[in-house]
Amino acid sequence: MKKVINAPENVVADMLRGMELAHGGMLRVIHDFGVVVRADAPVQGKVALVSGGGSGHEPTHGGYVGPGMLDAACAGAVFTSPTPEQMLEASKAVDGGAGVFYVVKNYTGDVLNFEMAGELAEAEGIQTDYVITNDDVSVEDSTYTTGRRGIAGTIFVHKIAGAAADDGKDLSGVGEIASRVNANMRSMGMALTSCTPPESGEPIFEIADDEMEIGMGIHGEPGIERKKIEPADQIVDQMLGKILGDTVDFTGSEVAVMINGLGGTPLMELYTAYAHVADVLKREGVAVWRMPYIGEYMTSIEMAGFSITLLKLDEEMKGYLGAPCSVAAGRPF
Amino acid sequence: MKKVINAPENVVADMLRGMELAHGGMLRVIHDFGVVVRADAPVQGKVALVSGGGSGHEPTHGGYVGPGMLDAACAGAVFTSPTPEQMLEASKAVDGGAGVFYVVKNYTGDVLNFEMAGELAEAEGIQTDYVITNDDVSVEDSTYTTGRRGIAGTIFVHKIAGAAADDGKDLSGVGEIASRVNANMRSMGMALTSCTPPESGEPIFEIADDEMEIGMGIHGEPGIERKKIEPADQIVDQMLGKILGDTVDFTGSEVAVMINGLGGTPLMELYTAYAHVADVLKREGVAVWRMPYIGEYMTSIEMAGFSITLLKLDEEMKGYLGAPCSVAAGRPF
Repeated sequence: MKKVINAPENVVADMLRGMELAHGGMLRVIHDFGVVVRADAPVQGKVALVSGGGSGHEPTHGGYVGPGMLDAACAGAVFTSPTPEQMLEASKAVDGGAGVFYVVKNYTGDVLNFEMAGELAEAEGIQTDYVITNDDVSVEDSTYTTGRRGIAGTIFVHKIAGAAADDGKDLSGVGEIASRVNANMRSMGMALTSCTPPESGEPIFEIADDEMEIGMGIHGEPGIERKKIEPADQIVDQMLGKILGDTVDFTGSEVAVMINGLGGTPLMELYTAYAHVADVLKREGVAVWRMPYIGEYMTSIEMAGFSITLLKLDEEMKGYLGAPCSVAAGRPF
Repeated sequence: MKKVINAPENVVADMLRGMELAHGGMLRVIHDFGVVVRADAPVQGKVALVSGGGSGHEPTHGGYVGPGMLDAACAGAVFTSPTPEQMLEASKAVDGGAGVFYVVKNYTGDVLNFEMAGELAEAEGIQTDYVITNDDVSVEDSTYTTGRRGIAGTIFVHKIAGAAADDGKDLSGVGEIASRVNANMRSMGMALTSCTPPESGEPIFEIADDEMEIGMGIHGEPGIERKKIEPADQIVDQMLGKILGDTVDFTGSEVAVMINGLGGTPLMELYTAYAHVADVLKREGVAVWRMPYIGEYMTSIEMAGFSITLLKLDEEMKGYLGAPCSVAAGRPF
């Protein structure tokens, strides 16, 4: 295991300490609970957005805490759901009287724990609602999931629902647009390499030097097909074919596009993939809205691979996606 | 070799095509010359900033092209200096009558070629000047360098000199502040793994599973010491010790801090490293200016490792470092 860490059991705490030292004006950390909270929380009268999940997907989740996106993020152990207690603590820290909205990726542990947290919060007088994201078209049911998995498209939900909450939408209004974003986005990933959680020190799966897996999940869950590495254009064709062939008709629409690196994939390769994505979308009559989102948005530690997300936009979504926000995952330049 | 590429000999062209498709409103690519130019170049009456070097360091160099930073970037083959012809073409494309300023990292090929490009440009009536960055304190002279190497601190030169040119400084004024930034910054890197240029398909060096190298260059040039992997805090102590022990006295100053990932290092590890950097700087009486710059600014393809840069700021530098800019390497959120 080759990592810049101290004691493996402290990686999440060490990371959160670094985040707080780095971005103190923007966020604070409730260290006893592993919860990242925007510095000025709670914002009175605003619906508060909370997300979270296992660590190892940075900048997801804490990197999206700040004005215009999340009010709080719960950091579980690496690839492990946070607990209902963490989520309750986050809810109490950010509730400004207008309720707390949970953005939950569809993994069984996350879903169960956020549902339980909602019950605990309601018992304390905090209104809650949630959306479960399930943008990954690759497989139905998976190692940790019933139905489809929630992956990088979830960041679009953070951004758009976050801006909607800033804009004064109430809990049901935030829920409505969050669900609409989820219903209109589709993603798919692929992996060239495995990754190693620091706590176990062992790769989460084995893969041969000349192989890739199409449809791989962000915790190494099996995908559709394992085969010899193909040229980038063929890989993109297979991924986009599955996305465009799914139940959202993207043709004729303006679409937000994300090419998300999984941690170990150089930007050179993401741009190479995007060149062909752009060609295919043009051929299919799909218009790319503004600039595509190309970079590391939701990673799997140091995994080499990437995912593609398309989100079919309406006018309201465009306004919220383009609204300003201030989060650690935005580069400071 | 596990990469999302098409033909290895076309990686740079494919990447530049993807960049142009992605960021068309911001930049254009002179494909015959591998030059990335800001979309609205030339800007009349403004000193134009040009940089460049081997590819494989993305988002360096093309990701920093745009208002407030570079006017053009020359993309060489992976880890190979661009040619004087590329640099001349870039100079002609961006000269707005106030001259062209080259930001050159101290590698022998880059220096010779930019010097030759300057002569060629002058022969065509374009005034030129340049700065050679050499922020890496780890070694004197190196595989491709006489003196010290230029590494991630160079991005601070792009930002500050770019803002100075926007602010109306003339060629000598831009040169003065670029030199001042270079004189006041110090960097050092370390590597856990090697990386593989697509064209050769072979790792640039071998390193054992339990080893790291302190002071490693961004093309795998040897560092100070190869040894067993140590805890993050010890690694940081060694790197910061060398930086703080060098000829710039950072004590009592406000300092811009960059924790730069080399491509394969998760953000979790960069924040872990930063936590201890912050502790040491506090102990040494060094104040971190605003938020540190934590992320991938100058990579070595998929190398795992990171570098630390400190820049001692004065009031003029702070104004320029904090000025707005609009470049592809800034995330679009």
